[in-house]
Amino acid sequence: MPGIFWVVPAAGVITVIFAILLARNVLKRSMGTPEMKEIGDIIFQAAWAFLKRQYTTIAIYSVAIAIIIGVLVGVLGGTEVQGLSPLDIGWRTGVAFLVGAVCSAVAGFIGMYIAVKSNVRCAAAAQKSLTEAVNVALRGGAVSGFLITALSLIGVTVIFFAYGGASNPQIAPHLIVGFGFGASFVALFAQLGGGIYTKAADVGADLVGKVEAGIPEDDPRNPAVIADLVGDNVGDCAGRGADLFESTAAENIGAMILGIAAYVATGNIAWILFPLCVRGFGMIASMIGIFFVRAKENENAMDALNRGYFVAIALSIVGLAITVHFMLGNWWLFGAGVIGIAASVVIVFITQYYTESRYKPVRSIAEASKTGPATNIIMGTAVGFETTLATALVIGLSLLLSFWMGHMSGVHGAFGTAVATMGMLMTCPYVLSMDTFGPITDNANGINEMAGAGPEVRKVTDRLDAVGNTTKALTKGYAMVSAGLAAFLLFQAYLDRVSFIKFGESGMYNIVDIARIEVFVGALLAVMIVFLFSSWAIKAVGKAASKIIEEVRRQFRADPGILAGTSKPDYAKAVDITTRAGLREMIAPGLLVVLGPIIIGVVFRFIPGYDAAMAVAAVLMVGTIGGIMMASYMNNGGGAWDNAKKMIEDGQLKDDEGNVIGKGSPTHAAAVVGDTVGDPLKDTAGPSLHVLVKLLATVTLVMCPLFIIV
Amino acid sequence: MPGIFWVVPAAGVITVIFAILLARNVLKRSMGTPEMKEIGDIIFQAAWAFLKRQYTTIAIYSVAIAIIIGVLVGVLGGTEVQGLSPLDIGWRTGVAFLVGAVCSAVAGFIGMYIAVKSNVRCAAAAQKSLTEAVNVALRGGAVSGFLITALSLIGVTVIFFAYGGASNPQIAPHLIVGFGFGASFVALFAQLGGGIYTKAADVGADLVGKVEAGIPEDDPRNPAVIADLVGDNVGDCAGRGADLFESTAAENIGAMILGIAAYVATGNIAWILFPLCVRGFGMIASMIGIFFVRAKENENAMDALNRGYFVAIALSIVGLAITVHFMLGNWWLFGAGVIGIAASVVIVFITQYYTESRYKPVRSIAEASKTGPATNIIMGTAVGFETTLATALVIGLSLLLSFWMGHMSGVHGAFGTAVATMGMLMTCPYVLSMDTFGPITDNANGINEMAGAGPEVRKVTDRLDAVGNTTKALTKGYAMVSAGLAAFLLFQAYLDRVSFIKFGESGMYNIVDIARIEVFVGALLAVMIVFLFSSWAIKAVGKAASKIIEEVRRQFRADPGILAGTSKPDYAKAVDITTRAGLREMIAPGLLVVLGPIIIGVVFRFIPGYDAAMAVAAVLMVGTIGGIMMASYMNNGGGAWDNAKKMIEDGQLKDDEGNVIGKGSPTHAAAVVGDTVGDPLKDTAGPSLHVLVKLLATVTLVMCPLFIIV
Repeated sequence: MPGIFWVVPAAGVITVIFAILLARNVLKRSMGTPEMKEIGDIIFQAAWAFLKRQYTTIAIYSVAIAIIIGVLVGVLGGTEVQGLSPLDIGWRTGVAFLVGAVCSAVAGFIGMYIAVKSNVRCAAAAQKSLTEAVNVALRGGAVSGFLITALSLIGVTVIFFAYGGASNPQIAPHLIVGFGFGASFVALFAQLGGGIYTKAADVGADLVGKVEAGIPEDDPRNPAVIADLVGDNVGDCAGRGADLFESTAAENIGAMILGIAAYVATGNIAWILFPLCVRGFGMIASMIGIFFVRAKENENAMDALNRGYFVAIALSIVGLAITVHFMLGNWWLFGAGVIGIAASVVIVFITQYYTESRYKPVRSIAEASKTGPATNIIMGTAVGFETTLATALVIGLSLLLSFWMGHMSGVHGAFGTAVATMGMLMTCPYVLSMDTFGPITDNANGINEMAGAGPEVRKVTDRLDAVGNTTKALTKGYAMVSAGLAAFLLFQAYLDRVSFIKFGESGMYNIVDIARIEVFVGALLAVMIVFLFSSWAIKAVGKAASKIIEEVRRQFRADPGILAGTSKPDYAKAVDITTRAGLREMIAPGLLVVLGPIIIGVVFRFIPGYDAAMAVAAVLMVGTIGGIMMASYMNNGGGAWDNAKKMIEDGQLKDDEGNVIGKGSPTHAAAVVGDTVGDPLKDTAGPSLHVLVKLLATVTLVMCPLFIIV
Repeated sequence: MPGIFWVVPAAGVITVIFAILLARNVLKRSMGTPEMKEIGDIIFQAAWAFLKRQYTTIAIYSVAIAIIIGVLVGVLGGTEVQGLSPLDIGWRTGVAFLVGAVCSAVAGFIGMYIAVKSNVRCAAAAQKSLTEAVNVALRGGAVSGFLITALSLIGVTVIFFAYGGASNPQIAPHLIVGFGFGASFVALFAQLGGGIYTKAADVGADLVGKVEAGIPEDDPRNPAVIADLVGDNVGDCAGRGADLFESTAAENIGAMILGIAAYVATGNIAWILFPLCVRGFGMIASMIGIFFVRAKENENAMDALNRGYFVAIALSIVGLAITVHFMLGNWWLFGAGVIGIAASVVIVFITQYYTESRYKPVRSIAEASKTGPATNIIMGTAVGFETTLATALVIGLSLLLSFWMGHMSGVHGAFGTAVATMGMLMTCPYVLSMDTFGPITDNANGINEMAGAGPEVRKVTDRLDAVGNTTKALTKGYAMVSAGLAAFLLFQAYLDRVSFIKFGESGMYNIVDIARIEVFVGALLAVMIVFLFSSWAIKAVGKAASKIIEEVRRQFRADPGILAGTSKPDYAKAVDITTRAGLREMIAPGLLVVLGPIIIGVVFRFIPGYDAAMAVAAVLMVGTIGGIMMASYMNNGGGAWDNAKKMIEDGQLKDDEGNVIGKGSPTHAAAVVGDTVGDPLKDTAGPSLHVLVKLLATVTLVMCPLFIIV
């Protein structure tokens, strides 16, 4: 065991302590006026209603899937691997799945718990100063960001050693792939369910409350208002948290599988442990970055967050250099890691270009709104489609360069892309903290609005809310590109695993020939799955919203005191209905992604002459391409629509004579249509597509014994 | 030469005579009242303005491209093929390109000429009876449909023999690939330019005329009204005609290349000539089908068209059986052909399901319009995305089954998919006739509206217009699935050609390994190109529309007599501006598709260790998948939006109390937004994507010498 490996447990323990200290720091703060405290309590109570329901459902499905995986792999796998019978592999995979699922669930649970505790405190802090509010929001966000990555690191490390990583390092990564699958399975539930929840609540609350009953947004009389506020946490905190938990876990495992070849050749276990150590340094770098965030009263809070981010980036590069020096001594691989870090910085600027009102894309959508909703939608679609250019170039160039460096390093090209992915994900805890900053400030703004805080205070939280919107958009870009980078490494892991099962250690299975008919059809079906999944996810928002509309109407009818303000609406009921609807609606798209590749693989396995494992590889690869391009369109297009509307609301759009076209104008109404269309794209389907991409990888990685005829 | 080959020249000559007779039959008919004659003349004059401008531009570009191709292939190709120097190959390819371009242009020209002559005669015939009107519209459409396919068959046959097909049949198909490229190059101009033209004129005429000036739709005082009427012909007649001309040509050439292997093995030239003969029988079958269309006064005209279609289908199967019996004697290949024919029938039903108001998808969009434009767009997007399921299943199953039959036949799996494509395209002349039926009846309806015909007559043309909308939608589905089927055959032709250039006749180059980094990145870029092309095409409509809006406003300002009805607006000017704008805006997306694969191939060629030809193959294959899925979304989604609006206008939507929600309601306004959004998707970007898919194939087929290091 290389001495530097101690950074892993050390970073894990320090990070957990760091998160606990942050959490205590946040929790001991003031919750403001009794009114604010009450609203905070209501959100907390509602969040509980959601968590209870969501994790019950997830637990049932997870246990069922774990058993199914264990049995399928155990019974149908049919291949003896190094003294382990298929049955042994089966139960280990099933248990690993459950552990991954539990870790992911715990991460999401803690993250959201702290987030909903932080929002009211952030609202209270905003009454003192901007600096204090930034501190609360960022620290609250950091609890979630750091705990999630720590759990990922600790989880993978523990299960690796538990499954004999110390004695049989070349086997253990194959046994722990279930962990990644479990993590992505829960991530899909969290992101898709959360995404449907948040947008359904948003649309439902607005349509009945604002349009039908004529009460303002975020009014406490609206039974769905709490569901709406809870939704922000559910979609952005829990959803994106699970997404990136899954990224870090799956990427770690994939990179470890890629390292096996170098381990077998050199006998040096450093090749397998390297990803864990890089992650450890990344966590420490991110932690120090957080300390550097000192917001100033008159400064854009985004600048303060960026300072900390660049400190984290710089320290990550140092940490990468140290790890490479002590473990591999190969500077080409350092170069590959730097490529990954650079890609994460570039994507931040690209996302800003496409989603900020300073630049042409958002302005063109706002301009197009002048001729009505149709031209707004056409222009927004065109902008969203166009963003695929930048996304594809960043991912394509990063892959080509890091692969080349991996090749030059003498190890393997794909190992270069693995190191690039690790480099990119080093700052993951920091990015996640910034992401969770978003819903906390969003909620804080809502709480201040409901509690009737003065315009001074509202100005502070409004400013923070705008920063939160930017950080949320950036995180989506980051998650998307990291999914793209991780993809190539995960295919290679898949091919390595197929090769290992088919031929043992000496085998070679590294061609995915898309000119074969079944492989081509697999690729075609994969892109279709991306479209179909998106279709169902979008439609689910509509269906769930209609359930909420019915419930809100019912409460208004049943108790006229609600609208009169004399009796309290049943928030928990609306939350529960949203939760049920959200979770029910996510089952079909979720099953599509989990079962699609398995069905293709199993059906093709029984057709003579077909190479089912290869067809599934094409499903994975081309599905990834389709998924990332579609996500680029949805995330960036949705963000651009949102900010085009905000730009008009801020009075930045003028007519030919120079008069401001503002809120309430037909142009604004057209922009609102675009924003509403963009909502399910950017907050439901788009982010779920990242998870889809990685779930495709983990489900095929775990299930590949089913597709192979030995 | 097999005796049955005489069906090719015979079918060619008979078809041309048939088309001339039909044209004479149509042209000698009455043009109705002097008013109608005048409007007809105006449209004709405007169509001339368009044709002149469009074909001048296309000619310049074509000559330039022909020279560039000749030089590039001649100088950079660097491979001697069977006694032909690269220079010999170069100039032959360039000339073939020009011949293909000229044939395609001539086909489009004649087709549109007859269509714009038929519309006024159809309007006049409608004053007598529905039967007469159907006859005129179908015969006018058939002139175009049959001439286009005849030109494709004759063109490919002549150039095949001119380039030594009789003495060196294994070389000639390689020399005529330029013909397919020329055809698809012009098709791209025709479809994209036409698509931008028609939708820009539509949006421009409506926004200034209806919204600003307050005059009704199709009012003769609107300077853009003729551009709008011309646009229907440009987009649907010329555009789709060029698209299917190109399909039939490229597919013929691809199938002939695939037949070379069997020819070399058996010495029987029938394997190379087979595609031509199948086409010949298909033309005769379609011709007889046309004779069976006898509309009855009280019948839905669609039923009459369907009768003829099914006769054409049945006779095609007989023709296929005869060809297989006399030329190949291999009944597995007959089976493959039947698969293709069946696929064309299935796609008709699927398209109807997704775009007719009888079924759930369109109804769900109409329902969603009740809550405003945003929910209408969300639902329409979801429906459009969902259609990829059916499209992918039809294409995927057809490919798997026909490939299997090809394999069982003992020739090659891909030859099975080639025969399936040929089978599917047998009825192409008939389908094209039905397609052109659409804009003729659409124009006839507009002419009757402008000429103030009575409600009885309007009812006839209204009914025909609705049928025309259906046939247009069906043709898009047909073009899309045939592009999908042809794709696999075209990749194989590409691989065969690379193999031939790299290794000569004995070579084998048949693996496209997407697990290689440069191949994967090529695939990623290909899907990006599909999104970017769509983005630019959609944006182009917006830009061109704004030019028209300016011109119409200018004419209204310059001569107040126009709105007063005392002076005639300058229709030709509006048409010319639309044409210029349309053609200018199509250059960027067009170049993207032509240059994209070439740049990827040439750049990768100079990077050591990369297999550029393989990366380009992935661009072709995965670009095809992305293009077809995107086209499925756009064509069907756009059609569904259109018919959801029509459904509301027809009074088919009701509220909870059973009251009709009709024209002028907010629900209708929301549905109009969806229709406007769908317009550039279904009439500009979507149909252009079919051409993109085939252009990818022909450009790579022609340019592949550039990507190969021998």
